[in-house]
Amino acid sequence: MTAYEDLEARFKRLGALGEVAGLLQWDTSVMMPSGGAAARGEQLAALDLTCHELIADPALADLLTAAEAEMGDAAADLDPWARANLRQMRRRWRHATALEPALVEALSRTGTACEMVWRQARAEADFALVLPKLKELLGLVRQAAAAKAEALGCGLYDALLDEYEPGGSSARIDAIFDDLAAFLPGFLGQVLERQAAAPAPLPLEGPFPIDQQRALARQLMAAVGFDFERGRLDTSLHPFCGGVPEDIRITTRYDEADFAKALMGVLHETGHAMYERGLPAKWRLQPVGAACGMALHESQSLLVEMQACRSAAFLGYLAPLARAAFGGTGAAWQPDNLLRLTNRVEPGFIRVDADEVTYPAHVILRYRLEKAMIAGEMEPENLPEAWNAGMAELLGVTPPDDALGCLQDIHWYDGAWGYFPTYTLGAMAAAQIFAAAVAAVPEIPDAIGRGDFAPLMAWLGEKVHGLGSLHTTDELIEHATGQPLDPKIFEASLRARYLGEG
Amino acid sequence: MTAYEDLEARFKRLGALGEVAGLLQWDTSVMMPSGGAAARGEQLAALDLTCHELIADPALADLLTAAEAEMGDAAADLDPWARANLRQMRRRWRHATALEPALVEALSRTGTACEMVWRQARAEADFALVLPKLKELLGLVRQAAAAKAEALGCGLYDALLDEYEPGGSSARIDAIFDDLAAFLPGFLGQVLERQAAAPAPLPLEGPFPIDQQRALARQLMAAVGFDFERGRLDTSLHPFCGGVPEDIRITTRYDEADFAKALMGVLHETGHAMYERGLPAKWRLQPVGAACGMALHESQSLLVEMQACRSAAFLGYLAPLARAAFGGTGAAWQPDNLLRLTNRVEPGFIRVDADEVTYPAHVILRYRLEKAMIAGEMEPENLPEAWNAGMAELLGVTPPDDALGCLQDIHWYDGAWGYFPTYTLGAMAAAQIFAAAVAAVPEIPDAIGRGDFAPLMAWLGEKVHGLGSLHTTDELIEHATGQPLDPKIFEASLRARYLGEG
Repeated sequence: MTAYEDLEARFKRLGALGEVAGLLQWDTSVMMPSGGAAARGEQLAALDLTCHELIADPALADLLTAAEAEMGDAAADLDPWARANLRQMRRRWRHATALEPALVEALSRTGTACEMVWRQARAEADFALVLPKLKELLGLVRQAAAAKAEALGCGLYDALLDEYEPGGSSARIDAIFDDLAAFLPGFLGQVLERQAAAPAPLPLEGPFPIDQQRALARQLMAAVGFDFERGRLDTSLHPFCGGVPEDIRITTRYDEADFAKALMGVLHETGHAMYERGLPAKWRLQPVGAACGMALHESQSLLVEMQACRSAAFLGYLAPLARAAFGGTGAAWQPDNLLRLTNRVEPGFIRVDADEVTYPAHVILRYRLEKAMIAGEMEPENLPEAWNAGMAELLGVTPPDDALGCLQDIHWYDGAWGYFPTYTLGAMAAAQIFAAAVAAVPEIPDAIGRGDFAPLMAWLGEKVHGLGSLHTTDELIEHATGQPLDPKIFEASLRARYLGEG
Repeated sequence: MTAYEDLEARFKRLGALGEVAGLLQWDTSVMMPSGGAAARGEQLAALDLTCHELIADPALADLLTAAEAEMGDAAADLDPWARANLRQMRRRWRHATALEPALVEALSRTGTACEMVWRQARAEADFALVLPKLKELLGLVRQAAAAKAEALGCGLYDALLDEYEPGGSSARIDAIFDDLAAFLPGFLGQVLERQAAAPAPLPLEGPFPIDQQRALARQLMAAVGFDFERGRLDTSLHPFCGGVPEDIRITTRYDEADFAKALMGVLHETGHAMYERGLPAKWRLQPVGAACGMALHESQSLLVEMQACRSAAFLGYLAPLARAAFGGTGAAWQPDNLLRLTNRVEPGFIRVDADEVTYPAHVILRYRLEKAMIAGEMEPENLPEAWNAGMAELLGVTPPDDALGCLQDIHWYDGAWGYFPTYTLGAMAAAQIFAAAVAAVPEIPDAIGRGDFAPLMAWLGEKVHGLGSLHTTDELIEHATGQPLDPKIFEASLRARYLGEG
């Protein structure tokens, strides 16, 4: 057995145990009664510790060195998948071993404690309450960033970003987001003006029974390509896509007053699911067989939700199905009204409720603030003020309190720093990849208008899903679309959808 | 840290990982779509391998020796729980390390293969089809029994039995089952005669909608003491009780034509659940904190189902609830008719459909046959003939084919040898423990007649549930009831229930 083969066996086990942890998290969100939380915590901790010991085993470090030497010696035509797999192994090992165990434990403990206080602080709109814990947590996050920056040989922010977006670069993000930030405020004004001049959308009158919502959601999931022999749809407080490629677990949350919310949410998660389902089966459980990063994952969910399913073509397909499901009649249920309803733009305070046009502003603000805080250029004391100034600048609104401002998202308060930019990088990639798919396979929009996603998924399977982590996100986007991620393409897609241009 | 403390930390992790495997099995039976089977197999295999490595770690063997020396040196008043915990650790270690890895793998692979063939053989009532695989599997089981017998210092059968019933002894079981086998045929004749002389029970006319069955089952679970903040009721093909003490997962299977089947099944599983829930919280995840063995576990389920819930007192409580749930009216829904329906005795071919009187005959037959086969005194070729002879002798019926005979149970065909006697040991222990509970707390039957299980559960909590694996099953039964397991007590309970004696 070569060193590389030995590594494959070890990472296969790590991959399987990682899937086990994922199932436990799914169960926690979907099935577990409240009394089970402490036992579940012990189970996850035992699994984490075990996985950490397996990857931090000194023998594994020796194998990495030996396998890199093997590959260095080998002919240049060696399987690029194996090469990429070894690179991903090294990257995972670096992340797993960069931090001292004491720092890992302090991050976990302080993150849990800070999240607990944050829940109260948000409920009471009292930022001062969580400030001490947030400062403590940020101190640890800065230490972690420094240690990872050294292990990965990159800057502080990029070291944290790399966990979510392998090879991601804040220099690139700065350039992209600066372009977007310059474009958005003016564009938003144009959209709002045009929207005000058009007739207001007619409301759909509910209630919309949950059983019918679920049945319609399942019908549309199947249209997109979801295989119910290889997955489930359940309910949870916060919708997500979990599971494994052969057993994908999507969740949603139903609102009897608004069926579009759950429906578009399910279609979003179905986009994630199709990516997971399409990952290369040959490299199952290996690092190179995993999804490329969070930006590309988000691109696949937004491609299905925003690019495909909020299009006039798809809403024309949906309208009669929705009428049949809910007994809807009249002008409100016509495709053009559904289009106006599902593409409404309105600046607001809350990121997760934001539309496609205003969402990037929420993300750019958070990205800039977390970058400054990680770099030590800003302290959490100044967060509420900086937040509100950013909202005024980018969206023209000022939150009335911090619960609608800097307390709204869990991320920073439970230790997830460096994640936010992937949302908007994903939105941009979705627009660019969808445009390339349509350029290559012109029948895609018509097919979507018939509820037929096969042409789109065939192209995505080949250009995106089936490639796993063979390339970096930037490389993959360039291969798939013919050019690097370009804010102008996203901006053009926004102009087309919201101003009717192009 | 003492060696014992180090062992506690290691076994705590093993306990948590064991719970993870249990959750995966629950999910497999209840939630997993069919396509997920292969991935689930990889996940369970990775978890098994990891647990095996943890327990087979040479450092753990050294710690066991060192901890045993520590305890030998320590004062005699050392915590008996810690002593029992160390004994259980040693026992688990012996089981885990007794077999060569190659034998473990061969057992697993051959068990899976044999089970596959068995499914077809049973469907086609073709014993010859599965015979070669069964012989191969039995050969491996005999090897395993020999290796475990050496590690545990006991006989072949007892070495297999010990996995399910720690410290169990076939010499004791022989004596007990011989007594029962002498009693049962004559008793059965008396019961059938008495039953024939009484009016036949009136049938309950369905259908019984599943939603109402579920609601009634949940109501009765709550009456027994099941806490839905710490557990769930779901549906699966084969009902079972899984989960962990703070998150117990019961399953059942509904039949629209017969609500009593699922209802009594749920009450049976609730008995298992109450045992798990009542295990000593202080010793959570430690071997001594686990249930004592399968016989005692079955005693707790049968105590709730057979002793408590098939009693006239409980059926008097149930009757109006069932009438309300299903809109039942007339004499068929009166308690005395429900009693006749739920205590009907009828010799049949199938163990899992058997009543309380004929069930032990099914078990005694299997026990005698598997003991003979493990000892090499009988070969699988002779199984159909020996099976049918035993059925004729013990129950007076002869299966028309092997699907209704020696092919009916999965146990032998997937490698579970030495398990069968625990069913009937459990039934006997249930009768003996319930009698002791009523003798100690005379208001128990009246309370059960009001749907109040608190007095019964308080007594069981103290005398059974809360003791975990502090004692052996035999010791525990003797402490709780004042005497060793005695077939005469079980026989007396059968006489009382089915002949109205005493």
